[in-house]
Amino acid sequence: MRIIVVGASGTIGSEICKALEHHDLIRAGRNGLDVSVDNTSPDSIKAMYEKIGKVDAVVNAAGGANFASVSELTPELNERGIESKLKGQINLVLLGLDYVNDGGSFTLTTGVMMDDPIRMGASAAMANGGVKAFVKAAAIEMPRGIRINSVSPTIVEESFSRLEKYFVGFTPVPASKVATFYRKSVEGAQTGQNYEIYH
Amino acid sequence: MRIIVVGASGTIGSEICKALEHHDLIRAGRNGLDVSVDNTSPDSIKAMYEKIGKVDAVVNAAGGANFASVSELTPELNERGIESKLKGQINLVLLGLDYVNDGGSFTLTTGVMMDDPIRMGASAAMANGGVKAFVKAAAIEMPRGIRINSVSPTIVEESFSRLEKYFVGFTPVPASKVATFYRKSVEGAQTGQNYEIYH
Ligand SMILES: NC(=O)c1ccc[n+]([C@@H]2O[C@H](COP(=O)([O-])OP(=O)(O)OC[C@H]3O[C@@H](n4cnc5c(N)ncnc54)[C@H](OP(=O)(O)O)[C@@H]3O)[C@@H](O)[C@H]2O)c1
Ligand SMILES: NC(=O)c1ccc[n+]([C@@H]2O[C@H](COP(=O)([O-])OP(=O)(O)OC[C@H]3O[C@@H](n4cnc5c(N)ncnc54)[C@H](OP(=O)(O)O)[C@@H]3O)[C@@H](O)[C@H]2O)c1
Repeated sequence: MRIIVVGASGTIGSEICKALEHHDLIRAGRNGLDVSVDNTSPDSIKAMYEKIGKVDAVVNAAGGANFASVSELTPELNERGIESKLKGQINLVLLGLDYVNDGGSFTLTTGVMMDDPIRMGASAAMANGGVKAFVKAAAIEMPRGIRINSVSPTIVEESFSRLEKYFVGFTPVPASKVATFYRKSVEGAQTGQNYEIYH
Repeated sequence: MRIIVVGASGTIGSEICKALEHHDLIRAGRNGLDVSVDNTSPDSIKAMYEKIGKVDAVVNAAGGANFASVSELTPELNERGIESKLKGQINLVLLGLDYVNDGGSFTLTTGVMMDDPIRMGASAAMANGGVKAFVKAAAIEMPRGIRINSVSPTIVEESFSRLEKYFVGFTPVPASKVATFYRKSVEGAQTGQNYEIYH
């Protein structure tokens, strides 16, 4: 299959690329190895799809949100989660539909914070919850047999030392284990799922 | 209690006002009876809180999203759900925290479409899912004993004739029944809940 991986150079994205290495991969990101895209810009997303043409799968492992307590979170700080983790992912779907072959798929990324909340995590949780619900609802009316799923990792081992103070008592999982669920989404037949990898 | 109801004149909002009529209600909306607010504008939200001062509860039953199939949904059409149903509600919380008395509450509105998807509903589902996850995550770190919940109605009887073609096979509930859950949120002690009224 021909597969775009947005966020291919990241902690999780690089493991996704290993799990999918038997495919024809197009590595994307702001400084993407094969194509550059800023998923917070619809024009940049359009330019990426125009450049690469038809694919069988779009995988996204890019997108962030600000960590801030609910007392410190402002509408402005919340915008990063809205623009990047929420709209960045959804616009990859809305603008990419015509570029995905019949029976192809989209796989997005959510995360544990919406289900098992942590301090400072409300903005990320919001974005995760929005993506999960979009995936579930969009799945029932995707055209041409196109599927859509999301992967919801807990904190991964590779990020744990940096973020442990937020995730006290969580058991991290290897990013390589998380990556197997993106492969399951791409090569399997399920749709509308949010795969929870919480331990 | 002194309670702001945003969307007080609406189908659900007017029943919320009846369920809470033993309180001191401030009816808000773009053409609000007591105070006007456009919750898609942070400046308008700030002006509302400055005008009315301290309250014991903020209830929101305003916010919309465009109905469109996932093939027709564009980033632009999706903006209404983002600005109104998602950010409109979250900004009422972020900008209102300092105006809510100790032990007070916020009650927001989600909806059945995130859990039991319908055609044309992906944008609304996204907004609902974002609000639900925000509520769950924000609840664990709200200051001064302030609580936060959301109410997730199925289609209400009063809206069913207009929207029946989207909600085929759904059993509508009276808006008055939905309203009892806003009262439960305001007068009860629970937090972080999304009350599902699906039949
Ligand atoms: N790490 C974890 O433990 C964990 C746990 C749960 C969920 N998640 C979620 O998983 C996703 C990936 O996390 P990660 O830790 O792997 O991130 P990461 O290591 O920071 O990598 C981010 C990747 O996304 C690309 N990127 C960043 N901003 C972009 C933009 N605007 N447009 C396009 N590409 C962009 C980066 O490449 P460029 O710099 O070249 O753009 C990089 O390849 C995030 O949504 C994160 O919230 C992570
Ligand atoms: N009706 C249903 O069956 C149903 C089912 C599930 C969920 N919901 C959700 O429940 C909420 C209320 O639905 P509804 O049917 O009661 O709506 P509605 O009858 O259309 O009433 C909307 C209310 O919100 C106010 N409003 C609209 N835009 C506003 C804005 N930008 N800023 C402030 N106030 C605004 C309106 O007053 P002004 O015109 O004066 O602004 C009105 O009071 C919505 O989020 C809806 O998605 C409804």
